[in-house]
Amino acid sequence: MSPSTPLLREANLTEIESLALSSQLNMADGHARQELTEAQRSIIDELPDLFGKAAAQPVDDLEREAHGAYLHLLRQHSYPTGPGGVLTCYSSSVAMEILSRSLAASGGGPVALVHPTFDNIPDLLRGNGLRLLPVEEDVLHHGPVGEAVPEAVRCLFVTTPNNPTGRVLAEERLAAIAAECAARDVVLALDTSFRGFDTRSHYDHYAVLRDSGCRWVVIEDTGKLWATLDLKVGLLAYGDGVGLPLAKIHSDILLGVSPFILVLVTRFAEDAAAGGLTDLHRFVADNRALVRATLADVPGVSFPDVDARVSVERVDLGDRPCLDVWTRLRQGGVYVLPCGQFHWADPARGDRSLRIALARPPGALDAAVRALRAVLLDA
Amino acid sequence: MSPSTPLLREANLTEIESLALSSQLNMADGHARQELTEAQRSIIDELPDLFGKAAAQPVDDLEREAHGAYLHLLRQHSYPTGPGGVLTCYSSSVAMEILSRSLAASGGGPVALVHPTFDNIPDLLRGNGLRLLPVEEDVLHHGPVGEAVPEAVRCLFVTTPNNPTGRVLAEERLAAIAAECAARDVVLALDTSFRGFDTRSHYDHYAVLRDSGCRWVVIEDTGKLWATLDLKVGLLAYGDGVGLPLAKIHSDILLGVSPFILVLVTRFAEDAAAGGLTDLHRFVADNRALVRATLADVPGVSFPDVDARVSVERVDLGDRPCLDVWTRLRQGGVYVLPCGQFHWADPARGDRSLRIALARPPGALDAAVRALRAVLLDA
Repeated sequence: MSPSTPLLREANLTEIESLALSSQLNMADGHARQELTEAQRSIIDELPDLFGKAAAQPVDDLEREAHGAYLHLLRQHSYPTGPGGVLTCYSSSVAMEILSRSLAASGGGPVALVHPTFDNIPDLLRGNGLRLLPVEEDVLHHGPVGEAVPEAVRCLFVTTPNNPTGRVLAEERLAAIAAECAARDVVLALDTSFRGFDTRSHYDHYAVLRDSGCRWVVIEDTGKLWATLDLKVGLLAYGDGVGLPLAKIHSDILLGVSPFILVLVTRFAEDAAAGGLTDLHRFVADNRALVRATLADVPGVSFPDVDARVSVERVDLGDRPCLDVWTRLRQGGVYVLPCGQFHWADPARGDRSLRIALARPPGALDAAVRALRAVLLDA
Repeated sequence: MSPSTPLLREANLTEIESLALSSQLNMADGHARQELTEAQRSIIDELPDLFGKAAAQPVDDLEREAHGAYLHLLRQHSYPTGPGGVLTCYSSSVAMEILSRSLAASGGGPVALVHPTFDNIPDLLRGNGLRLLPVEEDVLHHGPVGEAVPEAVRCLFVTTPNNPTGRVLAEERLAAIAAECAARDVVLALDTSFRGFDTRSHYDHYAVLRDSGCRWVVIEDTGKLWATLDLKVGLLAYGDGVGLPLAKIHSDILLGVSPFILVLVTRFAEDAAAGGLTDLHRFVADNRALVRATLADVPGVSFPDVDARVSVERVDLGDRPCLDVWTRLRQGGVYVLPCGQFHWADPARGDRSLRIALARPPGALDAAVRALRAVLLDA
């Protein structure tokens, strides 16, 4: 695939990411591609033993350990521990497909979805026949709660922290929205894949949701934090009485994930709890500072997400068209994401910004951002 | 879940398999759970190095190596090598979900599906809104080709070797069916997940399909052969002009599988090519012989799939109701699959047979089959 600008507008973000997969300067996808820490490397050295442990221990135990280690790390202390209360999936997108198909099977009105957000979320919902209504981030976070949950929707779907903006749904706001959803029997669904990066989202979402009495679903993702070569799981957690055929559709797609991956998730989560997560937060903050410092004096360039802590950073290009910048960067072997596709209901609003992945070795990031700086100064 | 007989009738096969996951005598699912050979164990000893290799090498190369090693092992010598011609998925069921949704998006009549077959295939097709028509195995293999491809269907879906019967679609028959599909513009889709076990299916399916001029899709699965703790991939191969949005829906669900798993698949396939596959065939044949010998003198019991080479074996129970036998086995901690659910269009036809998994350590299999023998002699 060698996209011209029109083709690039047609492509989805994952297709654009796939162009970058074998590039040295791939700052496109949000997967974790930084170097391993010394402690993480010592876990990799143990892989043969971990394989043996995974083969020997009952998979129910391994799953319980992985859920516990990962969710407690995020201070997500209350979670369903009975069989099937948290469904383990190959990835958060598989969890999203299961949720989308479950919603489609349940009847009702359109789905309200935060705007902007990563485009495979609207694509999976629409691909399963659901109609979407955008909810702007400002309305979601600060508008009247009745507007955050539009009339006659069957579900409100929120990515928090959001991708690419990093905006976090505060605990009190989640409670207010959940109460509204409960009162109107709207399913409240969250994708919290990036919460590991932001301690402001390290509160007990499930307790808030449960206490509201609403029907709720949360998608978690262990795949954003650690450079485990995409050995990861997605989790699909939901409350009693959710009224969606989640477990049935999950059983159509998988019997279970690899017990080896469950053990690996447990070990990386334990290392994170022992200090690794704090180190990772510092690492991402340093990489964000590097991007901002390198581009600080480029006229017209700004950083719209001042408070973001997630492992991606948006850059506003002023009056420079993003696709021109993207194409020139690509000619130099540097890959980032154009932001049009995040604005799934109004792509033009992303035409002057791009997204840079921060979970990368600082040297590679530095080279990529210097290349971006040169393109921007020349544009 | 503690199913009574009525609940068991409602459950799908995967839900029944999940009951067995932590049991010592789990002969239920068709995953590979035998012991590793010495050569395979030495691959596991290298896992830290394989992780390093997967991190260092471009993922395009790793994917090409895995496709080549696996498909050539099965004498599937011709396959699409361009970008996207073979889509790598987390599993064959994820590939099946992508195919099902693609078919649903493409319009047209019902889908014809071999009967019986593993129930997640009809469930995924129906779950995506498709109507199904059963094609009996005898018609598929030996009937007039016009009946093997019923009138007005948009797709014919065939599992070969079939699960649970092990029946293999012969090369000439595939060619005849593909010609019929080409003439009537029917998509011909194959699930060949079990072909690794049966050299009669080690012919070049894609060449036959391509030469016919039909629109075709094949789902492959590395997960049935080797006890890699479900570290596996599913492949979704398709011909030019298939006219289905397979690549787009794939990109909605994943950017790619783990490069670590790609490297592992390559290494296990190389070991299989160097003699491991022949050893595996002998292993499965020995386990099949063990089942048949242990039950040989039980009155009324027979083995309907005399020629089967796949890693599962059906046992016909004579006039004993399968669910009674299943329930009594379970009381002793032994798990197998009842066959009703395989007969997705007529469950009653499976009411007197069960399926035993053969990819297990012989000692455990022996204990399970002896328990089955005792139940049957007492029933």
